[in-house]
Parts: sequence; structure tokens; C-alpha cells
Amino acid sequence: MRKPYQLHYWPSIQGRGEFIRLALEAAGAPYVDVARGPEDAGQGMPALTHYLQDASVARPPFACPLLVDGTLVLGQTAAILLYLGPRLGLVAAGEADRLWTHQIQLTIADFVTEVHDSHHPIGSGLYYEEQRAAAKRRAADFRRHRLPKFLAWFEAVLERNPKNKGRAAPHLVGVKLSYADLSLFQLVEGLRYAFPKASERAFKQTPRVLALHAGVRQHKRLAAYLASERRIPFNQQGIFRRYPALDG
Amino acid sequence: MRKPYQLHYWPSIQGRGEFIRLALEAAGAPYVDVARGPEDAGQGMPALTHYLQDASVARPPFACPLLVDGTLVLGQTAAILLYLGPRLGLVAAGEADRLWTHQIQLTIADFVTEVHDSHHPIGSGLYYEEQRAAAKRRAADFRRHRLPKFLAWFEAVLERNPKNKGRAAPHLVGVKLSYADLSLFQLVEGLRYAFPKASERAFKQTPRVLALHAGVRQHKRLAAYLASERRIPFNQQGIFRRYPALDG
Repeated sequence: MRKPYQLHYWPSIQGRGEFIRLALEAAGAPYVDVARGPEDAGQGMPALTHYLQDASVARPPFACPLLVDGTLVLGQTAAILLYLGPRLGLVAAGEADRLWTHQIQLTIADFVTEVHDSHHPIGSGLYYEEQRAAAKRRAADFRRHRLPKFLAWFEAVLERNPKNKGRAAPHLVGVKLSYADLSLFQLVEGLRYAFPKASERAFKQTPRVLALHAGVRQHKRLAAYLASERRIPFNQQGIFRRYPALDG
Repeated sequence: MRKPYQLHYWPSIQGRGEFIRLALEAAGAPYVDVARGPEDAGQGMPALTHYLQDASVARPPFACPLLVDGTLVLGQTAAILLYLGPRLGLVAAGEADRLWTHQIQLTIADFVTEVHDSHHPIGSGLYYEEQRAAAKRRAADFRRHRLPKFLAWFEAVLERNPKNKGRAAPHLVGVKLSYADLSLFQLVEGLRYAFPKASERAFKQTPRVLALHAGVRQHKRLAAYLASERRIPFNQQGIFRRYPALDG
């Protein structure tokens, strides 16, 4: 049996680590969520900060999440999924399909950054309360322009995938579940948490995005994960935060 | 001879397209900078907007730059470089080195987004003048925290590459020029344009980043490109903009 993958991510939020967790969980892959483990077993926060801070790490990731697999230390959510995709059976086989799936994931990453900046437009080292006025303006722009634009793009991708014709549960690429599908599922979850009003309005224009979300939700291993304690609830420290002043 | 690559990007700025241009130019690869060509030859802006807007495009990029190579249509700067790297001889051969180069490129992409948001923290659809106060705050945070943090990371990457020992012109990965080196060169160029004061101060802590920049500058094909009309000068519409109120 293979050594479990080591996922390193902040232990109290879903954040960007969740996109990796969903892939590992959906595939039933053995992994350790290191920072949530006990320090006396070599886990916990010290194991995580080692990779970010120790000069002995030859190829240090800039930030979390990071994946350790044998001698490989890999940061950047989309790069981790690029690496895991074929190993977890969560991406098609050909180069063109893999690049397309990766391209979608990178666009999801861009969207996630914009979601984050809707509550932290001035600086991630400052509290929300220190940038509330700017956040109100940025969130309004996000709700009015960026949210519908990104969702319309995901909808178009689903609509133009010829393999989705006649299917109740569409996929972003080809006929099979991919890591990008799981990530889009997570976006829907997060948007519903953070922007219940604005996202409900926006989703009315994107029935295929909602159908994908509903389809992914029925995935057995994923449903078991979502019902487990391994799934950290959304909260006010993550990427998706519910500030009523930013919704509407 | 192979068909030239088609690069599609806004014709009047360096922007994110420049990271692709530098790779194509350094490799001496045949390419067409489509949006800058004549409409009566099927080029110009209509050719670009086709890929972004026409429902007939099965796999539409969300934004520019995009690359067309035969039947492949590919968006996302880092994905384009992932694809071009091996074809242009601008990345090492092994999977670990390729992932590491890609990871660095994705971190550069994150940095570029933060540079952009230093002058557009509220919305990319608004003028700078409509968000000047927020930009002043965000740029101050950028200069104080983010700029030194990113540069220190690039410096550490160069310092920890064992192949750089005793070399005047270091590389980010292994012993050879990669597309990530070209992109870091471009970051130095852009930072010097946009933040002459803050970047000069920050670069004092990162001699290896400056040595990489100086080394790349001596690359023959690249030097010829930089001296040519194909290199669009920095200006106030691109990612890197010089607003004295944001420097200091």
C-alpha cells in the first residue's frame, strides 16, 4: 500500500485546502491532514510551518496548502490538483483535456482570490473591521459584475461540453467527474454561505452549475465526508465569510 | 516548418501577455501577436474577441492572454507556459522540476494580481481615480508587507537552488534558463517602472533576484526583442502603473 499523502493546511478553516480535501476524499485516497494531527506524532502546526519557514526545505512553497508525497513538496492548489488528478482518477487521460481541466481550476483560483478580497480589499494582514468601507464597495462590485461573470463562464463551459447533452448531472470536462467539478461544487457551497442573497439571485441564471452541484452532492464518498467531522464548517476565518453588510 | 503559435492579447499593453511573449521571443519561436495584426488578414481585435465571446468556441478562455496552437485554444498565463515550456526548451525534463517551475509561475501570477490590485483594489471596471483612497492604503500595505515577502521568497528559491553555487547569473530551477526566470525578469522590470522608490529599497535585500535579472538581460534574442518595436513600453493601462501617490 502507498504511503498516505500529507496535506498541510491551516487546521481550523476550509480555505484553499478544501479543494484538495475534496479530491482526496472523493477518490478515497489515504491521506493525513497533518496540521490537525497531534504534535507528539510529528504532526500539528510545527510540521506545517517547517515547510514554510525552515531554510532546509530546498523547494519551499510560498503558502498553504501544500502536499507532501515522498520526496515531493508541492504548493499552489491548482498545481497540487494537476499532480493528484491522474493519480486519483479525477481527470481525463489526454493532454488537451488535462490542460482544459487545469485551466478551469486556475480560473476557479482567480475567483477564490476575488471572493477573499471582497472582505479584505486593502490587506490580508488587517482585520475586516479595519477595511469595512472599502470591503462594502468591493463586495458591491463583486456582486454586480464579477460573480455573475464567473458564474456565466462556468455555465457556458457546462453548456458547451457536448457530453452533457441529455444528462441530469453535467460535468465540466467530458463524461467523468474531475477535480474541477469538485471545486465548482465547493464554490457553490461557499457562495451560498457567504452571499446567500446575491448568490441565490445569480444562480437563477446558471441552472447547469446548480445541476452539477446537486450531482456531486450525491457522490457516496463525498457525501460521507461532508457528513463527517473531517469537514470543517464554514466560519468567519476562511475565504468565504458571511458579513451581511457585504451581501444584498 | 510548424505553423506559428497564435498569441492573443490586448494590443496596447504588456500586461499578462508579456510573460508569454518573453518565452516565445527568448526561444526564437515563430508566433503571431494576433490582436496587433491587420484585420484584413484575419487578425486584429475581432480575432481575439472571437475566442472570448463566440458561442462556437467549445472551450472558451475566461480572459486573455490566450494561445491558439492548431486545434488547441488555451487560456491562463501559467497554463500556457506549462504547455509551451517543453516545446520551447524553457523547462527541465523531469516531472518534479516541471511542477516546481509551474509552482513558481503560479506564485508569480499571484504576485501580479496583487500588483494590479495595488492600483485597482475596489474594481477593475472602475477608473483608478474612483478608488484612489483605497489604492493608497492597499499600495502602502503592498510596499510594506507583500512586496518584501514575495521578493524574499524568490531570493530564497535562488539561494536554495544548489546549481547556483558560484554562478554569477543564477536560475530559479536547475542550471538552465526557464520561463519562470523570464517572468521574474519581467517582474523586476515592472516593479522598477511602477514602484521606483519602494522596489529599489526592496531589491537591496535580494541580490540574487537582481543577478538573475542582469543575466536574463544579456540573453541575445531577448535583448534584441527588448530593443525592438515588438516590446510595448510600460504605460498607464497595464498591470504595472506608475502613480507617484502609490510609491514611497
